[in-house]
Amino acid sequence: MATIDKYFPGLDGVIASETAISFLDVEREKIIIKGNDLIDLSKDKEYIDIVNLLLEGSLPSTIDKVKLEEKLSSNYDVPSELFNILQLLPKQTHPMDGLRTGISVLSGYDENIDNRSLNKERAYQLLGQLPTITVNSYRIINEQQPVYPQKDLSYSANFLYMITGENPTELEAKIFDRSLLLYSEHEMPNSTFTARVIASTQSDIYGALTGAVASLKGNLHGGANEAVMYMLNEAKTVEEFEDILREKLLKKEKIMGFGHRVYMKKMDPRALMMKESLKQLCDKKGDYMLLEMCEAGEKIMVQEKGLYPNLDYYAAPVYWMLGIPIPLYTPIFFSARTVGLCAHVIEQHENNRLFRPRVNYIGEQYV
Amino acid sequence: MATIDKYFPGLDGVIASETAISFLDVEREKIIIKGNDLIDLSKDKEYIDIVNLLLEGSLPSTIDKVKLEEKLSSNYDVPSELFNILQLLPKQTHPMDGLRTGISVLSGYDENIDNRSLNKERAYQLLGQLPTITVNSYRIINEQQPVYPQKDLSYSANFLYMITGENPTELEAKIFDRSLLLYSEHEMPNSTFTARVIASTQSDIYGALTGAVASLKGNLHGGANEAVMYMLNEAKTVEEFEDILREKLLKKEKIMGFGHRVYMKKMDPRALMMKESLKQLCDKKGDYMLLEMCEAGEKIMVQEKGLYPNLDYYAAPVYWMLGIPIPLYTPIFFSARTVGLCAHVIEQHENNRLFRPRVNYIGEQYV
Repeated sequence: MATIDKYFPGLDGVIASETAISFLDVEREKIIIKGNDLIDLSKDKEYIDIVNLLLEGSLPSTIDKVKLEEKLSSNYDVPSELFNILQLLPKQTHPMDGLRTGISVLSGYDENIDNRSLNKERAYQLLGQLPTITVNSYRIINEQQPVYPQKDLSYSANFLYMITGENPTELEAKIFDRSLLLYSEHEMPNSTFTARVIASTQSDIYGALTGAVASLKGNLHGGANEAVMYMLNEAKTVEEFEDILREKLLKKEKIMGFGHRVYMKKMDPRALMMKESLKQLCDKKGDYMLLEMCEAGEKIMVQEKGLYPNLDYYAAPVYWMLGIPIPLYTPIFFSARTVGLCAHVIEQHENNRLFRPRVNYIGEQYV
Repeated sequence: MATIDKYFPGLDGVIASETAISFLDVEREKIIIKGNDLIDLSKDKEYIDIVNLLLEGSLPSTIDKVKLEEKLSSNYDVPSELFNILQLLPKQTHPMDGLRTGISVLSGYDENIDNRSLNKERAYQLLGQLPTITVNSYRIINEQQPVYPQKDLSYSANFLYMITGENPTELEAKIFDRSLLLYSEHEMPNSTFTARVIASTQSDIYGALTGAVASLKGNLHGGANEAVMYMLNEAKTVEEFEDILREKLLKKEKIMGFGHRVYMKKMDPRALMMKESLKQLCDKKGDYMLLEMCEAGEKIMVQEKGLYPNLDYYAAPVYWMLGIPIPLYTPIFFSARTVGLCAHVIEQHENNRLFRPRVNYIGEQYV
């Protein structure tokens, strides 16, 4: 029955899906989203433009955007029992586990859960709810009061407001929005693959997202942005940071925030955009320490390992300068990616084939 | 970068993992578990023998078994807050979603969650807790009081006692135990694949299991045993059941409980064992209606479609005659499979390679 006898660990290089959603053009190091270059989009579009592109197939008109903002903000609220449930979680619960439980609970409120034709509407609802759940699962675990959305702010500005408790400046909101845009979709990383594998049993979008949170939690995946910031925080000066990096290299420790399985023979184009944002924040603050540390680290890693920064490497210091608590970095990544995940679940259901691979049995023999 | 250009939808026939755990010998239609034929095992071994085999690599001695029963029963209890959380779930929550939330919550109680070397101990703990969570998530959603485990009963007898509220007879306990054994492990179905994909990010066992519940919920996967019972219950006589089946075939509806992606050119060997159990229960009750209906359905499906019954087809009427509520069939399947899932997560972590496949981009072109 096996049609491919060769085994590629981690399905490295194996084509798992056909998709019209996105593609990493490895030759040209471009991220293509529905026929658009993500980096071009990041220059003059906003996160909700990408939401429209991913869920409706086209960039929105000005009127479409107004309507979309309204649609999302009308979905900001979550059932109040959800907060009560989060309050009962042990205080040591990992923020990604709190988020996972929150999304898992949501399915019970869906009166039409078996009707998959409503998945696009569900995606908008989840996109509205995700910032509220992301921020409050973290706050409640940390014994803080829940914070409620401000419906008069834009989607990204409200998200950042909920995180920091302060109305963001225009620059801050713009930079945070760009980070969401850059995190929105990226072909077939493990979490997206997880969501499609689950959806292929005809399971629902909540289950697919729950599995994707579990995947993104792993430190070979979404956890990298947090790891980068903890590493930066170990140092007080550029020289200290260089020493830390060189020591880690000497000990052959894995250094997070560099390279990518599929591409990156040069710097992640998304990292370049985030580096620009970091520069803007440093300009504003008149403090260039984090930028200088990151640039020094960049040089060392290129020299010593031939590895270039990925998005996580520059998202970390940007989030730090925006005043975002480190344990929220990965949950924010998940929130931003939710739109991509929903698009993949919808596509999987539309042209489904159950994922059911085979194995190479290397165990005890039998007669 | 793509090393396989041919695309196999659903990874049909593609080797995704090396494993020493289990293997479907398609030629001989045998299920091999660590060098043993599962059907041979089912004739004189119990579920906890398989637990030992899967987690320790060998069948247990009599003393090992006593110790294992003690270990599992010492883990029957769950944190009482878990029941409070389940009480807050909407009453329309699907039992598999209640179970998913329950497992997701558990991670917060693990003080050493980042220590993967404890995964085998965690597996025993989860195996102890799963019956308690499976039964009570269902009961609480249905506004029943939680039921507590009886530690003086064997693992399977306690599980069945918690489900029905009555001490099972020896025959009932034995038949239920055999069903758990037959469901314990089956190579690389979607839920096992999901668990390994998630674990490959270095995410933890709770996350992997949470994703596996979401996968097993889908009606192309674990939902089949429930679907079979609802279909049987539509009929009151053998003739009525035959009519229902023929009508479904005429309407080209998918009939659950038959065939398998990978094998089954004859009857699922597990289904044969369950059919034997069904006969025993019919003998005891002096009522052969369900057996006769199933046999009639079997004949029609072989004649009309060339498809043979799988385990779900005969597990359904067995569970019905054991007095198990239908919505618990899939959660019980999950509980039984937990040991196999844990073995796969442990194996994945021991020799890990991040799952990260590629795609065929069929979307809008770009310049």
